[in-house]
Amino acid sequence: MTELQRRLTEFAAAREWQQFHVPKNLAAALSVEAGELLEIFQWLTPEQAAAVMDDSENAHRVRDEVADVLAYLLQFCTSVGVDPAAALAAKIERNELRFPVPGRGAGGDAG
Amino acid sequence: MTELQRRLTEFAAAREWQQFHVPKNLAAALSVEAGELLEIFQWLTPEQAAAVMDDSENAHRVRDEVADVLAYLLQFCTSVGVDPAAALAAKIERNELRFPVPGRGAGGDAG
Amino acid sequence: MTELQRRLTEFAAAREWQQFHVPKNLAAALSVEAGELLEIFQWLTPEQAAAVMDDSENAHRVRDEVADVLAYLLQFCTSVGVDPAAALAAKIERNELRFPVPGRGAGGDAG
Amino acid sequence: MTELQRRLTEFAAAREWQQFHVPKNLAAALSVEAGELLEIFQWLTPEQAAAVMDDSENAHRVRDEVADVLAYLLQFCTSVGVDPAAALAAKIERNELRFPVPGRGAGGDAG
Repeated sequence: MTELQRRLTEFAAAREWQQFHVPKNLAAALSVEAGELLEIFQWLTPEQAAAVMDDSENAHRVRDEVADVLAYLLQFCTSVGVDPAAALAAKIERNELRFPVPGRGAGGDAG
Repeated sequence: MTELQRRLTEFAAAREWQQFHVPKNLAAALSVEAGELLEIFQWLTPEQAAAVMDDSENAHRVRDEVADVLAYLLQFCTSVGVDPAAALAAKIERNELRFPVPGRGAGGDAG
Repeated sequence: MTELQRRLTEFAAAREWQQFHVPKNLAAALSVEAGELLEIFQWLTPEQAAAVMDDSENAHRVRDEVADVLAYLLQFCTSVGVDPAAALAAKIERNELRFPVPGRGAGGDAG
Repeated sequence: MTELQRRLTEFAAAREWQQFHVPKNLAAALSVEAGELLEIFQWLTPEQAAAVMDDSENAHRVRDEVADVLAYLLQFCTSVGVDPAAALAAKIERNELRFPVPGRGAGGDAG
């Protein structure tokens, strides 16, 4: 993700958009784009939603909105100095303690 | 991101949560978590927002919500078979054509 | 809604919260609260979602989040000087032209 | 708001859209529209945001998105049988106890 963050930073700098890319604006933009991704699904049944990629127009929209969400998430992380992969790895470790797998002992895998 | 996607898939499978992790639910959860990240900033001035990581409690909340957003984005991508890094790389290339840098010729860098 | 807007304005003024209640912050807070309402439904099947009010704890959460969404919507409208009921009435009229009812002539009800 | 709820119900029924207007979908649509309202503000400074209605195009967008948010909030309330004005009035009363006004005694207004 570091390489994508670098490309996004260069892209914004070349267009003098960095003045807008402050944490509060980027958090708002991330939320807006997540809404645009959800919009694709809002009237679909769970079954229709599961088949969303079968329609090429919808598939393009999904990829486009995923890209926008990831772009603003990475730019947000750059703006606050957070490493997103490290943050997620730490959270997975916390969640492994918080939500133990049924049937596994505290010492590790029950298998 | 592929490794994080694999860990998230295993985490959900071990807890039998995959039944809930369908595209529509994951798009909704992603939007909800993006809202929780924005909540940290909603009453802050731009200056206070830029200094959000100076407060250790806020810094922890930011890392935690970044992890949640990334987790649901990656799980969403797994559920629809989209490669998020490839989607973003393709979008950056489209945007380089759509938003040309002022002062650069079509042939490349004006420098 | 005018009476509720007045009560919300007095409530905020008495606590000196009006400094925070500027349009951008209120639009962000509205979006955050809409996310909290959606959170109640994110893992539910459509059938479980339709029965959400049968559970008294969920019913309380739904009423509480509806109140928060409406509160920030009304406070946003106060901050920008928009009459929400008039805005919606105008939109319904535009939508009646935009989405004509099948089987009804342009002159009115086909019945 | 009851009259607007009735008009929205008739509008949807005439177009056979009620099948889509189930609580989970309406909560998602409400969140999506709140995001579209926020989008107008995402790159604005607080000062620019406070003057948003001075630009006639932005003013139209704001009224349009306010109408959409209110429409989905009211349709959501119809779908779950919640009275939004009553929910908000009850919340204001709870909040008056939860956030007492500084300098006012428990018996009422200090003035």
